[in-house]
Amino acid sequence: MYKLLSTDGRAKRAEFTTVHGVVQTPVFMNVGTVGAIKGAVSTDDLKLIGTQIELSNTYHLHVRTGDDKIKAMGGLHKFMKWDKPILTDSGGFQVFSLASIRKIKEEGVTFNSHIDGHKIFMGPEESMRIQSNLGSTIAMAFDECPPALADRKYVTDSVDRTYRWLLRCIDEMKRLNSLEDTINPDQLLFGINQGAIYDDIRIDHAKRISELDLPGYSIGGLSVGETNEEMYRVLDAVVPYLPKEKPTYLMGVGTPVDILEAVDRGVDFFDCVYPTRNGRHGHVYTHDGKLNMFNASFEMDQRPIEEGCGCHACRGGYSRAYIRHLLKAKEMLGMRFCVLHNLYFYNHLMEEIRDAIDEGQYSSFKEESIRRMM
Amino acid sequence: MYKLLSTDGRAKRAEFTTVHGVVQTPVFMNVGTVGAIKGAVSTDDLKLIGTQIELSNTYHLHVRTGDDKIKAMGGLHKFMKWDKPILTDSGGFQVFSLASIRKIKEEGVTFNSHIDGHKIFMGPEESMRIQSNLGSTIAMAFDECPPALADRKYVTDSVDRTYRWLLRCIDEMKRLNSLEDTINPDQLLFGINQGAIYDDIRIDHAKRISELDLPGYSIGGLSVGETNEEMYRVLDAVVPYLPKEKPTYLMGVGTPVDILEAVDRGVDFFDCVYPTRNGRHGHVYTHDGKLNMFNASFEMDQRPIEEGCGCHACRGGYSRAYIRHLLKAKEMLGMRFCVLHNLYFYNHLMEEIRDAIDEGQYSSFKEESIRRMM
Repeated sequence: MYKLLSTDGRAKRAEFTTVHGVVQTPVFMNVGTVGAIKGAVSTDDLKLIGTQIELSNTYHLHVRTGDDKIKAMGGLHKFMKWDKPILTDSGGFQVFSLASIRKIKEEGVTFNSHIDGHKIFMGPEESMRIQSNLGSTIAMAFDECPPALADRKYVTDSVDRTYRWLLRCIDEMKRLNSLEDTINPDQLLFGINQGAIYDDIRIDHAKRISELDLPGYSIGGLSVGETNEEMYRVLDAVVPYLPKEKPTYLMGVGTPVDILEAVDRGVDFFDCVYPTRNGRHGHVYTHDGKLNMFNASFEMDQRPIEEGCGCHACRGGYSRAYIRHLLKAKEMLGMRFCVLHNLYFYNHLMEEIRDAIDEGQYSSFKEESIRRMM
Repeated sequence: MYKLLSTDGRAKRAEFTTVHGVVQTPVFMNVGTVGAIKGAVSTDDLKLIGTQIELSNTYHLHVRTGDDKIKAMGGLHKFMKWDKPILTDSGGFQVFSLASIRKIKEEGVTFNSHIDGHKIFMGPEESMRIQSNLGSTIAMAFDECPPALADRKYVTDSVDRTYRWLLRCIDEMKRLNSLEDTINPDQLLFGINQGAIYDDIRIDHAKRISELDLPGYSIGGLSVGETNEEMYRVLDAVVPYLPKEKPTYLMGVGTPVDILEAVDRGVDFFDCVYPTRNGRHGHVYTHDGKLNMFNASFEMDQRPIEEGCGCHACRGGYSRAYIRHLLKAKEMLGMRFCVLHNLYFYNHLMEEIRDAIDEGQYSSFKEESIRRMM
């Protein structure tokens, strides 16, 4: 299912085969929170910008339109018209960051919907059932993501509970996958490593979850307030304790530079809202760094965002001047152009990363890329 | 330049040849106010939904990014990447409806920009210069659009001034088209008939402007507060006094039913913000009437907006349930789908209208279409 094609230093180049198709890694998953990429981007658009796998949010789809209804309509793939892999998060991150008046117990978490305030309970079983209803390709284990700066005692207890929750997730997913009316009986479960910035807690936890022989493992709870250096240090410490012959997914990361550094430390799955969120604010990525398209210097600039880029906006010949004009006039088209460009940039960067690993040139590729971007 | 291919009753079916290509009429011009269709629709998208001619607003482009700058970048066609015909309005309608503290004199109008309040003067010469800078295919004469319910005296004086302004527009356009650095030396000028709902004033004005042998004529000042019956009556009265062998353009109209009725009265150019504005609010057109996509009855509806429709959303298989979900979640993609659908619907309706005239079946086509839509 996960075939390691080559390595270059610690960097992994692999092929991950799922019922919804093959994913070439390292890969950046494009984030479509509520079942759509923000910025007026459809799944037809995703196909044109080289998206291999899309990520949607369990919590958002649970509170609206509702996973039960989406199941009744044939699952998330059919609902959003996307036949390639989908990863759903567990809902845990949103529960702990968006919802209010929450109570964490051994059973799970009670919280209020951010839409209408109604009380919801979510534990490992509930999260698995929602993700099973959505029928995603990859489901994420239900975990607690403690604050980056939480104290040792809190983190130790939290990680222990997250481990117990993982065991319950495994059992519940096994049960759900065996039901007759399950949307995707081949749904995969990825475990999540936690432990804030305490290397020893993370390593201990990584060892314990690795023994469970899940089809993939992620590193959660990073990029939530710690410094870049702390993040890289945690990766240096913990990735060696996660199985090399399984996907290694760094959740919610990050900037192009973060991705280049994390690949160098053995990570090969990523997701982040930066390209879509920044695009909607007129911030676009190029190989020579970010541009703020509102900048007055672009008022008469007839070049595309980046020369040679194959995105809809650049390939279509839409100029920086026109895109700036659209953004200034608050035309949605300006945001759509920037989001499509950014997602194309990220997807294409991953392709360049894969090529560099294939050629055994990753180290110099990384250094040169970062030098240009910084 | 304008070739009448066939008629069916008073309905005209023609071909209008311009330096930017041939327009088949009756035609609906797709409105891109600031040089972009609202709803994240690009000129590449327009090509896919059968748009023949795009309309942009002189006033909006004058106040931002500025027609002088757009000229320096090669004109509006190059700026927005659209090589088919563009019609620009005169700016008059916006000046009289958007801007504040205006003063109307024989020379023109003084008003304050709706963006930063700075004082702007626009008269016939200024309007022609702006439109020449934009380099549109068709420029509209600078006119005053008096309120539908203005009194006879006001309308008479206003129409007389609009006539004198038209003479100045003709002179200025001739001068501008002959300049060496003109973007489009073949720019065409359409005259505008005014007269509120006073048939005799409109007829007298129509006769006078028709004598000027312009390449096209429009009917302005309708759909601004009068009833549908008054509008149809004015069309019955005035269209016969406009040259049949020239384009007949009803400005700012309208609903599909209005268009069907106006074609039956000899009109063959239309423009309106309805399909884009309604689309952004989740209201979509079908041959069986309008649908409000927010309606709860669509929550689990897996059909496309309209069966058999060739728009991006319907052809792509995106369901009513998904589109409703997107709109409820305030995802831009929901608006884009609805706007693309509506523009496709309008463009396709015009194609059906042309076919019906070609086949000499317009009257029954119109009746059957209206019966289904109402």
